[in-house]
Amino acid sequence: MSLTLAACLTQLSENQKTSVEITEHYLQQIAEINPRLNAYLHVCSDGALQAAHAVDKLRAQYPQALGRLAGAPISVKDLFDTSFAPTSYGNARFRQHRPSMSAIAIQRLQDAQAIILGKTHLHEFAYGVTNENPHFGPARNPVDEARMTGGSSGGSASSVRADLAVASVGTDTGGSVRIPAAFTGVVGYKPTHGYIPLEGAFPLAPTLDHIGPITHTVEDAAILTDVLAQTETAHSLVHQLRSPRAQRLRVGVPQSFVDRYATDAIGQAFEACIALLCKQGVIEVHTFDFPMPTDEIGVHQANIMGAEAFAHHAEDLVSHAQTYGEDVFERLMAAADITAKDYIRALDFRRYLQSFCTDILTDNDVILLPTTPMTAPIIGTVTIQVHGNEVPLRQLMTRFTNPWNLTGFPAITLPAGTIAGLPFGLQMVRRWGHDGRLLRDAAYIERHICHT
Amino acid sequence: MSLTLAACLTQLSENQKTSVEITEHYLQQIAEINPRLNAYLHVCSDGALQAAHAVDKLRAQYPQALGRLAGAPISVKDLFDTSFAPTSYGNARFRQHRPSMSAIAIQRLQDAQAIILGKTHLHEFAYGVTNENPHFGPARNPVDEARMTGGSSGGSASSVRADLAVASVGTDTGGSVRIPAAFTGVVGYKPTHGYIPLEGAFPLAPTLDHIGPITHTVEDAAILTDVLAQTETAHSLVHQLRSPRAQRLRVGVPQSFVDRYATDAIGQAFEACIALLCKQGVIEVHTFDFPMPTDEIGVHQANIMGAEAFAHHAEDLVSHAQTYGEDVFERLMAAADITAKDYIRALDFRRYLQSFCTDILTDNDVILLPTTPMTAPIIGTVTIQVHGNEVPLRQLMTRFTNPWNLTGFPAITLPAGTIAGLPFGLQMVRRWGHDGRLLRDAAYIERHICHT
Repeated sequence: MSLTLAACLTQLSENQKTSVEITEHYLQQIAEINPRLNAYLHVCSDGALQAAHAVDKLRAQYPQALGRLAGAPISVKDLFDTSFAPTSYGNARFRQHRPSMSAIAIQRLQDAQAIILGKTHLHEFAYGVTNENPHFGPARNPVDEARMTGGSSGGSASSVRADLAVASVGTDTGGSVRIPAAFTGVVGYKPTHGYIPLEGAFPLAPTLDHIGPITHTVEDAAILTDVLAQTETAHSLVHQLRSPRAQRLRVGVPQSFVDRYATDAIGQAFEACIALLCKQGVIEVHTFDFPMPTDEIGVHQANIMGAEAFAHHAEDLVSHAQTYGEDVFERLMAAADITAKDYIRALDFRRYLQSFCTDILTDNDVILLPTTPMTAPIIGTVTIQVHGNEVPLRQLMTRFTNPWNLTGFPAITLPAGTIAGLPFGLQMVRRWGHDGRLLRDAAYIERHICHT
Repeated sequence: MSLTLAACLTQLSENQKTSVEITEHYLQQIAEINPRLNAYLHVCSDGALQAAHAVDKLRAQYPQALGRLAGAPISVKDLFDTSFAPTSYGNARFRQHRPSMSAIAIQRLQDAQAIILGKTHLHEFAYGVTNENPHFGPARNPVDEARMTGGSSGGSASSVRADLAVASVGTDTGGSVRIPAAFTGVVGYKPTHGYIPLEGAFPLAPTLDHIGPITHTVEDAAILTDVLAQTETAHSLVHQLRSPRAQRLRVGVPQSFVDRYATDAIGQAFEACIALLCKQGVIEVHTFDFPMPTDEIGVHQANIMGAEAFAHHAEDLVSHAQTYGEDVFERLMAAADITAKDYIRALDFRRYLQSFCTDILTDNDVILLPTTPMTAPIIGTVTIQVHGNEVPLRQLMTRFTNPWNLTGFPAITLPAGTIAGLPFGLQMVRRWGHDGRLLRDAAYIERHICHT
């Protein structure tokens, strides 16, 4: 049984365990298991223990000065600048890079006295979802080490699933928090765009980039996000978890969209999940269709992501070409050809999608869909069979997550069982800014679906 | 002496004249003078008289039902959709086009019971500032008919200057309200971006497009804008004209920027203007430099304008190529090559410029600069001499106006005298959203500079 962030904080506050004891346990687990999983690119052994000592001392002497995460060991994606640890962004050139300042999100974790265990594995520059990193090797899924973690926050998800951290912080531009969370069987939450400030997280595509927690439970996601977003107590997500909710959630399901991209196994698992929740009286389902050809969602998302990423990397692609891995280099170079017209039309499309989904989420409380069209593939997989067709894996992998980067709406994945031993995720989406209500509803659903 | 909008409304409300009398006078002037000036592309003779009759009747029977502009004859740029009159957008293909709905701005004029005299001359699709229109011929400057009105709202400015309308409404994407106002010696005001809704004005570049009035006085600009923006009485610009102001305005002057682009004559006139205002104790001057090479402002503005314009026209450029004039066609086709990277960097640059100018306008009340680097050129002029160099006219013409489309800050031009008989404009800029204070300060300056 994994230690949740909530339970960890209780153990600490009730003096059942010291932060040093907990931290030592996690460092020992990392030393033992990380060489197989490749979840961490860098482990802050000394720093973590020093910080744990300091928190234990504070608890003994000035308990009133303890922060909200005092003593809890957390991992963070290596896309975040850390002044106290090397920051690679998953790229060869930055292997020894030591930023002068930590990202705002990291500073907030430290202000709350979390123990930063280390920096987790990612797809190079977060521009990919397989975490097959040519510079650092692939991240391996704790459920089956032959399989991908998914990405780009794969190391974060892996560290939580394998109990190499109590919780983790990742980033999500097309699904990079939610996909690995689904593939490894944990909770991944992408708040509303801008909810957590991006400063100090290496940009992929600023209008699509989100920071989000990867945790064991919805409650843990709320606790961690409250610190990352610095919400005041009265507006905190933890507080809103306990707010009243509808007895029966009105749920919008984009059934034809799901049918188009999901493998048969995921389609059936999703259907069974919906049926179970209906039978329990937890939800009532209203199916809807997107009014546009749904392939366009991915095209416009890719254009915005590519254009913004290329705008950031353009000069480095010339001056440091050899430091990029092949897949990311090619992806970025292809993005050089995106025209301003394509970008502007993608921005127009985004407004159209936002407007349509806002309407759907006026008639419904949440949108429900699978998090990924497939379970975690074997490392090295390039294409996958869907309805008898070979489809490129990478493009397919983000189909169910990237619409919510385009809209910026809050979205969360819950572990909803397994298919042939591999986890699959159930994704819930709510309206822009309705983060508290999303987590409240997610906690409700969480109580009604089986965990593995 | 021209009839101002304020005076016109007084004459009407005090029953000195009927709306029919005033409208007939203007229609007669148009019939006589417009064939020379080409200020109107379409005159609504019958409609205007009918509307004037209706207002006069209302005034006699239900004066409480009179609108804020009841009976005042106004002209509007032919970029605005009008359901009651043909709408060409300055393009051959739309010569007989009759939109099903009027633009919001037009509807608001009609709700306020203004009399719409007709649709004024413009550069094709508003994409140019010379108003040399290949489909409708050039607009001619009332001050000197051999000269340009400037544009793209040249017909609007001309109609006001030549007393073919009491006031007019234009649009401004790089200076299209302010440039012709300066060239013809009237007031042109571009409110903060978004202050007047754009719906129904043919888009040029939506993030740069503004609607604004062209009038004889600052007070007239306030009266007209209050209707166009539907401001409530307490927040109205007219109300704010009378609010208290600093005894001595703190004025920021980008002297090196002015020196770089202004002709010697404009530079000297501007200097004399500043000296006069200083001597009168009206302003105190603080010069400042832009922190970026100022040529970049124009480059980024042109990239945003081109990219957004091309995104709108792309399909029509193929299917209706022959209906475009040569200059606008070439300009649009060149914009096809603008990359998403260029556009994104231009958007980044815009934020940088906004931030810098916000700082300048924290230390100063207003920024003061000439409206145009030259007085109205002879029709057909392609290049112009500045400091001994031949410079392309079109590019130079918008140098002093387009920064404020990029920032979206409110800007107004006041007639500030003549150079060899040709009007020149003094431009004032304030912070985003400070429209009321800008007009109040502009009215103050207006009282202290000589009109011609």
